[in-house]
Amino acid sequence: MPRPELVSLPSVERPALDRMRQMIDEYLDANLPPVTQYPSILHEAIRYSALARAKRIRPALALTVYEALGGRDMAYALGPACALELVHTYSLIHDDLPCMDNDDLRRGQPTLHRKFGEGVAVLAGDALHDLAFQWVAVSGNCQLALELAQAIGSYGMIGGQMADMEAEGKRVDADEVSFIHKLKTAALIRCSARFGGILAGADERTLAALSVYGEKVGLAFQIVDDILDLEGDADKLGKQVGSDVKNAKATYPGAVGIASARAEASRLVDEAVTALDDMAYPTARLIELAKYITGRDE
Amino acid sequence: MPRPELVSLPSVERPALDRMRQMIDEYLDANLPPVTQYPSILHEAIRYSALARAKRIRPALALTVYEALGGRDMAYALGPACALELVHTYSLIHDDLPCMDNDDLRRGQPTLHRKFGEGVAVLAGDALHDLAFQWVAVSGNCQLALELAQAIGSYGMIGGQMADMEAEGKRVDADEVSFIHKLKTAALIRCSARFGGILAGADERTLAALSVYGEKVGLAFQIVDDILDLEGDADKLGKQVGSDVKNAKATYPGAVGIASARAEASRLVDEAVTALDDMAYPTARLIELAKYITGRDE
Repeated sequence: MPRPELVSLPSVERPALDRMRQMIDEYLDANLPPVTQYPSILHEAIRYSALARAKRIRPALALTVYEALGGRDMAYALGPACALELVHTYSLIHDDLPCMDNDDLRRGQPTLHRKFGEGVAVLAGDALHDLAFQWVAVSGNCQLALELAQAIGSYGMIGGQMADMEAEGKRVDADEVSFIHKLKTAALIRCSARFGGILAGADERTLAALSVYGEKVGLAFQIVDDILDLEGDADKLGKQVGSDVKNAKATYPGAVGIASARAEASRLVDEAVTALDDMAYPTARLIELAKYITGRDE
Repeated sequence: MPRPELVSLPSVERPALDRMRQMIDEYLDANLPPVTQYPSILHEAIRYSALARAKRIRPALALTVYEALGGRDMAYALGPACALELVHTYSLIHDDLPCMDNDDLRRGQPTLHRKFGEGVAVLAGDALHDLAFQWVAVSGNCQLALELAQAIGSYGMIGGQMADMEAEGKRVDADEVSFIHKLKTAALIRCSARFGGILAGADERTLAALSVYGEKVGLAFQIVDDILDLEGDADKLGKQVGSDVKNAKATYPGAVGIASARAEASRLVDEAVTALDDMAYPTARLIELAKYITGRDE
């Protein structure tokens, strides 16, 4: 069976995403606490994790939405957008801990607890979690802080981590996996799309369309992530493959097989794209980004 | 040497504090996620930690300041005030983990990781950390979110935890211990006093006085905490004593001896009270609260 179209990287999107990724990397480097300031080890650990090679999908999504909706004040939008990357990084650090997934490799380098010890890893994750709210609060827009907190709390991302942990070793069907993915991964990606909209002052109808778009992209992204864990290239991914099988994780391909999982990801991307029809803005870059995010091989 | 006066519990303050503590406990119980909602285990863990018998010093301080400054809208102030207790609870959960202080007893019951496992403890701490920002953001006052994030990040509470961990087993002098205490404990207590002021719409001069008051009370509180770890009653404290010696922690009595530590705590309370002279509000209850917080035996 041929791989569906969505895995090919669209030629127009890559330069735009590269430009955005560079802006994000520069913002992170310039605004994360410097190692020259106390406590140095903690700041070193924060930078080790947050500045490692990464796709920056969540802030790129927020900024792409922001620009698509006419937003031009990058000095205003970059902080809250990059806060999404801090949250993602913190969640990876805690998720990699020995008491959770016990992973050794992340973003092409040893996981934080392998490099700096578990205590530092717990605290660096906490500090990044906290810094995210600082970068959001600086914008003066409390709605952003509220939406972020809801998206990543016990009814969102953390609830998904818990569900993921509880499902280990159990037989779960596709609906149950989708439920876990919705919380664990899609909640923050949905929030990222909404961040772009809120930052641009979007109306409720646009935000609703962005919510559907973000959630579908998030669900497709996690299915692709599960597939890559089965058949991806560890060097390109920068993390171990086979980790889900090792930890007896509930995955979409585990529930329905790789071919059906791939078809479901493709269907979700189509639905994400269709949701954008409700928006009175140019959506070409959002369509390309959805395809890029879910067609990645790294 | 007789114990200094500050350890006696003032008779007027106790009923006011009891009333406040009851309001706080009721608010927490009513607003924490119910165990009937998914993921139940996580919500059970959150409630196990946050609803355990506790002094509620941080929210009580915020609310006492709020009332002293004329604030009367408890429906508005209780959420942000109780968020301070969520932060404190999250920090205890992570601090008690095996990779940190490895404590078995907290608030009169087994620590969360002993009861629910390490993975759940990490996630419950994360969820409480997050929920705190949710309760703050609901107020619509972004300054609160910003101040909280700054007080508990790598330059505040988490930086203090890191410093505390780094100082283990090392010989440290009184100034170094004070520096650790300022971050680890006083930053959040200072923030609690300022929360009350910000919620009541206080001017900069009043906020500055509250900052000094909160920081001095916080420093005195931690010295008393260190003393109680040496000579307190585990049953009353609800946690193991001797934990600091076991973990070779940097403590104030360890640096200067118990008698000098007690004198320093007394001096700090005096300074906290003096700082209140700059405020054009009735300060009797703040003075009593400072003495209560630092004279506690539980």
